[in-house]
Amino acid sequence: MKGISILGSTGSIGIQALDIIRIHRDRFRVVALAAGSNIDLLEKQVREFRPAIVSCADAGAARELRARVSDLPGQTWIGQSTEGLERAATAEEAALVVGGLPGSTGLLPTFAAVESGKDVALATKEVLVMAGELFMNRVAERGIRLLPVDSEQSAIFQCLQGNGDSEINRIMLTASGGPFRDASIQDLQRVTREQALNHPRWKMGPKVTIDSATLMNKGLEVIEAKWLFGLTASQIEVVIHPESIVHSMVEFQDGSIIAQLGATDMRIPISYALAFPQRIASGTSPIDFPQLGSLTFHEPDAEKFPLLKAAFDSLKDRSTMPIILNAADEVAVDLFLSEKIPFHRIPRIVLEAMDRVDPAQVETLEEIQSFHESVVERVMKDWRLWIEPGGQPR
Amino acid sequence: MKGISILGSTGSIGIQALDIIRIHRDRFRVVALAAGSNIDLLEKQVREFRPAIVSCADAGAARELRARVSDLPGQTWIGQSTEGLERAATAEEAALVVGGLPGSTGLLPTFAAVESGKDVALATKEVLVMAGELFMNRVAERGIRLLPVDSEQSAIFQCLQGNGDSEINRIMLTASGGPFRDASIQDLQRVTREQALNHPRWKMGPKVTIDSATLMNKGLEVIEAKWLFGLTASQIEVVIHPESIVHSMVEFQDGSIIAQLGATDMRIPISYALAFPQRIASGTSPIDFPQLGSLTFHEPDAEKFPLLKAAFDSLKDRSTMPIILNAADEVAVDLFLSEKIPFHRIPRIVLEAMDRVDPAQVETLEEIQSFHESVVERVMKDWRLWIEPGGQPR
Repeated sequence: MKGISILGSTGSIGIQALDIIRIHRDRFRVVALAAGSNIDLLEKQVREFRPAIVSCADAGAARELRARVSDLPGQTWIGQSTEGLERAATAEEAALVVGGLPGSTGLLPTFAAVESGKDVALATKEVLVMAGELFMNRVAERGIRLLPVDSEQSAIFQCLQGNGDSEINRIMLTASGGPFRDASIQDLQRVTREQALNHPRWKMGPKVTIDSATLMNKGLEVIEAKWLFGLTASQIEVVIHPESIVHSMVEFQDGSIIAQLGATDMRIPISYALAFPQRIASGTSPIDFPQLGSLTFHEPDAEKFPLLKAAFDSLKDRSTMPIILNAADEVAVDLFLSEKIPFHRIPRIVLEAMDRVDPAQVETLEEIQSFHESVVERVMKDWRLWIEPGGQPR
Repeated sequence: MKGISILGSTGSIGIQALDIIRIHRDRFRVVALAAGSNIDLLEKQVREFRPAIVSCADAGAARELRARVSDLPGQTWIGQSTEGLERAATAEEAALVVGGLPGSTGLLPTFAAVESGKDVALATKEVLVMAGELFMNRVAERGIRLLPVDSEQSAIFQCLQGNGDSEINRIMLTASGGPFRDASIQDLQRVTREQALNHPRWKMGPKVTIDSATLMNKGLEVIEAKWLFGLTASQIEVVIHPESIVHSMVEFQDGSIIAQLGATDMRIPISYALAFPQRIASGTSPIDFPQLGSLTFHEPDAEKFPLLKAAFDSLKDRSTMPIILNAADEVAVDLFLSEKIPFHRIPRIVLEAMDRVDPAQVETLEEIQSFHESVVERVMKDWRLWIEPGGQPR
């Protein structure tokens, strides 16, 4: 029985991880769950899986949950915020921690899991975007297994298995192109919140869905892949593939390309990360290739989706540019979701931040976290000045 | 330095194996070459690679070659036919034997290579079609590595690496569909030898090119894959994929599909077999996916290409039906190449043979070889009666 701790249990990744665990009760045991404020769902998960450790967003949520599950036999530790996340991430009986917290909130608990020697199934790409070098160094030092959960990174990881240290020519990250793949630049100025949240292929949380619509998500994956697989930016290509059947590809030195394909269903990469190196039933439907007809591939449109190029640019030197890119995007997506800015201002704000915020020297996790926070503050303070006519000159 | 023996060195596989070896002289040494009557090319190969053992088609060819290379320093043993092939297949300094002899002629020498403990890079699919069970048993008993060279089987083999004993749902063998993919049944009656020899994607020997036009080649690969990978017929699907970029795919228990893609260039599978488990430069061109545009997939047309279904049918019980299918096809393709029958008679003759020739009990290699020969004789004797009006009733 493999003990599993799930950080972000009420999010899309967490829910699907529990779906997999539900059909493999003989193999996995849930030992910790960490979530935010969705106490209704968290209560159901606690009743079903009986974890020893549970973490909620704050003291109020924890109190509420404690009251609701007081009828359960046995002891469940219920805590909150930083302490709760840390206990869930380092739970003694966990062999594997599923890192499915949204955005930069996943940073500290995911590091804590690695420090305590847990294998990590990583869905929170911000960990690698913000602290890639530091994180990969700690992963290597602790000798833990890092298993990517992102469908594209899982695809690359699967394609690399059995290829020893064969030289990689390049990897090709596929991208559906999002809901606005065929929109004009003019169309993008009139995009609504609902249109942007309606991804054609994948059901995901709001932040990553908006990032998919701007191709920022693919940009973050480029940075993530660089660290996960030890690549240079020039070894990473992005290919638009609207059908989202080919989840990514690796080309080796001999010209042979290994690709991973499958339904657009996160249960495949999640089940792979949970059971690695074995494969287990995931409950997904098979693909009928003749029925599918054709798989298409296009060049990404750099003008329409400037954040993809911005992500590549952020890798140009070993600076904090990826942290600036990511922090500014978190703010900009929030502003869009709360309808304070139109869609096409998201890339504008990120590009302005990359231009205006000074990079810093960061070495420790605390420095990274605090630099991230300073960028968030700065963008929240200044974004209006940057994008409005008559704003602050550069 | 890995010692390599090449059976069929002047054929398509042999020539390309030598192309790979030429760019990796530090890694491979040619210790034996076996060919047929193309003494001009064989002489060039002997001068360039200086093998210790050379085999030709017959005593006349061997005499001619001996005279031509008498100026070379050092000792080269030059022999012919069965003895020559056997010496080349079992050459003491060979670690790997490339089995690239055409058709049933490859059977005995390939077995001899296995018996003498050599790893085998197998291109001659007839070995598995005719003697699959016996061959795989000997491979297991001798503990040698069997490395498929066929592009589809190499694709499957590559896709299986790193997947341990993960359960396979199915494999999907891709087929270009050959030159007559879009022809009507009426069109097939008017096909010329030149049209049939003009394969749209792959440059191969005449027998396999005609087999590709009838889809018999894919049928033989179905039988080959069954033995190579220990599958049942129901786990094998054939998908028409005209672009020939996806060389084949494996779907695992979790619904994940691993595919191998690449240029339509046999140097990829050949280099993989030569250097396994490493990958080495093969000299092929990379694929530009956006430029490619789209990859398409179709169901094979069972009515137009009855030999594909015939191959699946031949697997229905553990009988000699695959030997009958293969032997009848060898005769029928010869008849077509010598312009004695039109194209659409090839499947007719094979189907008639499967219907009319009695299966036999075969256990040893000698029994298999002699049953094969008896079927060839029978088909050569009776094919006219079978396909001509007023022919012998069943």
